Formats: sequence, structure tokens, C-alpha cells
Amino acid sequence: MSKVFASLGMSLDGFIAGPGSSPDNPLGDGGMRIHEWVFDVESWRSRQGIEGGRTNQDDAIVRENFSRAGAYIMGRQMFAEGEAGWSDPPPFRAPVFVLTHTPREPWVRQGGTTFTFVTDGIDSALAQARKAAGDKDVQVSGGADAVRQFLDAGLLDELQIHLAPLVLGSGVRLFDGVSPDLGLVPTQVVASPQVTHLTYRITSP
Amino acid sequence: MSKVFASLGMSLDGFIAGPGSSPDNPLGDGGMRIHEWVFDVESWRSRQGIEGGRTNQDDAIVRENFSRAGAYIMGRQMFAEGEAGWSDPPPFRAPVFVLTHTPREPWVRQGGTTFTFVTDGIDSALAQARKAAGDKDVQVSGGADAVRQFLDAGLLDELQIHLAPLVLGSGVRLFDGVSPDLGLVPTQVVASPQVTHLTYRITSP
Repeated sequence: MSKVFASLGMSLDGFIAGPGSSPDNPLGDGGMRIHEWVFDVESWRSRQGIEGGRTNQDDAIVRENFSRAGAYIMGRQMFAEGEAGWSDPPPFRAPVFVLTHTPREPWVRQGGTTFTFVTDGIDSALAQARKAAGDKDVQVSGGADAVRQFLDAGLLDELQIHLAPLVLGSGVRLFDGVSPDLGLVPTQVVASPQVTHLTYRITSP
Repeated sequence: MSKVFASLGMSLDGFIAGPGSSPDNPLGDGGMRIHEWVFDVESWRSRQGIEGGRTNQDDAIVRENFSRAGAYIMGRQMFAEGEAGWSDPPPFRAPVFVLTHTPREPWVRQGGTTFTFVTDGIDSALAQARKAAGDKDVQVSGGADAVRQFLDAGLLDELQIHLAPLVLGSGVRLFDGVSPDLGLVPTQVVASPQVTHLTYRITSP
């Protein structure tokens, strides 16, 4: 069966966004620093419609994630933050299932990205995403709340963390409230001068 | 000039000890899990007077640290926690300078380890440790307070983190109160199935 994975940037002190995170400032103060490594990576730029970029090991990681993801799941807030900013075509090029309490008609964009709004919970979103992904994997894009919901429910197979060499000091912590019973087995480590990519297989709870 | 480095075990969510850390329970509840990878490593066992053990990449990291450290600096609490438990000879096999407010005569142990109690601050401790280390490096052993003092003062050249694949959820955070201006450049990443060894050169503040 296809895997369910999440792939998140995190500071060395455990934050995925800085303080003051809001729809106008989704990454919070200083949070953009976590993702600096990706902005000049070719595969990421290509999905934003920008030419050129680095093709090193960071690029290989991003390219592989884009390639394996046949469908995405994201939280309401991440969608709200992205809705205004994503280009058309958006970077996903695959069906996206948005966890929300507010019903809305599917929002069809160019390039294969249709946002479907799921109001009956993560199990339903996952079932729809699995079906849409076919043989490919399902990526839980974020934010932290959505990833934690999947972790808590035991529905995530793999967690990839792009560990940025910096300290944020405050903001949104990825693992806040996650059970110490979570089982993590390192399966891949890829390092570049900019960032360290850590992949863990999740074994419990 | 010789380098000043620290080498600490940390959980994926940023803790170097669990909750309830005290002299009777220095690693706090669950904190021992952070260090599980080291207990069957040959070079670590050898310093505890125990034979056998793994000789993989984890062993190479520990062996290199023991080899390069010509003197150690530690906080008062780490010393208090270790005093009763360290064997004689203690694992350091080199001069150890203890940061404290309480004067005490040097405590000479077997195997080259003498504990010298420094009451006039980290600059004095570092000067004494540098002199004792000669061409070798100085290791700030811990705890978190001592490492943060050296970070804040811009006296640490290198930070090595042994990132354990687990979530502690609460306890003592390594980076609590550390400035977001801290500059970290990844210089080495070594991975084993048990732990990921991350080495950073410190460039500021």
C-alpha cells in the first residue's frame, strides 16, 4: 500500500514557524529562515514557475517528494495562508484535500491541482487521498496541527524533517503535545551545507 | 589554537534531560533514552572499565571526542551528579575544571583526572583548561547551563549534537534562552540506525 508521509522544515530548537504566526505572516517572525535552503533549489523553483537553481542533494530530496506524492492533505489554516499566494498552476500538480469545518465546492486549478474540502475528519480525507494517489504516496503537507493529528491517530508512516541550522527561540513547535511513546526509526540522513534531511519511519503509537 | 567544543545528546524535540531532573535523577524521567545509543559502544564502555561493545560509526565519534579532549569544563550540578557515580579512574582521563561558587581543594583521581574547582567564572576556567589541554581541544561537558554560558559569551567554536530518534515532551531544553543570532554552520553529519551525530561550527554571536 502507498505510504503516508509528512515533510517539514524545522529549526534545530524544534520550531516550524516563528512567533506571531498568522494568515498574514504564516511562518511567523524569522520563520522564513527555516526554508531558506529550498528557495534556490531547481525542483522547488520549477514548481513555482521559476527557472534555474541548484541541483545538489537538496534538490534530489525535493524532487523525490514531488515525484512520490500522488495526493496531498493539508489543514484549514495552511490552505487559508496559501490560497492568496499560490500561483496558478499551484505547486502541487495533484489533488489536495483540505481539512475544514466549512463546506465548499472543489476549487479546480491548472496543472492537475484540485482542492477538495473535507468536513468529516482525517480518516475520510485519508481515504479520499489514498484513492486519488493510486500507487503513489500521500503527503500530509501541514501545518503542525494536521501533522500532529495524523501522528496521534497512528496514520503517518514516515516523517521527514529538514533540520535548519538555526535557533528560533520561540514560535510553533512541531512536537508540542506529541506523545513520548511515538516510535521513530532513522531510515535516511542526507546532509548539505545548508540543511540536514532526516527521515524517520514511524513505528508507534 | 585548540578548539572549544561541546557534545550533547538531545531528543528530536530539543531536550537534553527529561522532566524532574535532580541530583538523584540527573537525566530526569525518560532522559536516559537520549543516551541509549552510547551504552553498547566500545570506546564509551572502555572508559567505564567495561569490555566489548560496538565499533561502528557511533564508536568512531565517541573515540574521536575522547581523543581530542585535553581538558574538560563542567557545571557545578553536573559535577555534583557525577561525583558519587563516577568510577575511579573516572572516564575523563584529563584535567576537569568545575564551575562553582564554593571553593574546594583539587580532587585528584586515578588515570589523569583531577577535578579543579574554579570560582572566578568561565573565562578563568577556559584559560586554565586551555593551558592544561595544550595542543588538544577543550570540551565543555555540560550541563545545559554551562554550555549556554559558553554560547552566550561567544566562547564555543563547535557544537556537536547526538540527535536521538525520540520525543521527550518535557524537561530541560538545550536551546532555551539562546539567542536566535547564534550562527551555526553544519560541518559534519554521521548517521547510524540508533542516532544522528550533527556537528556545527559556531560563527556568532
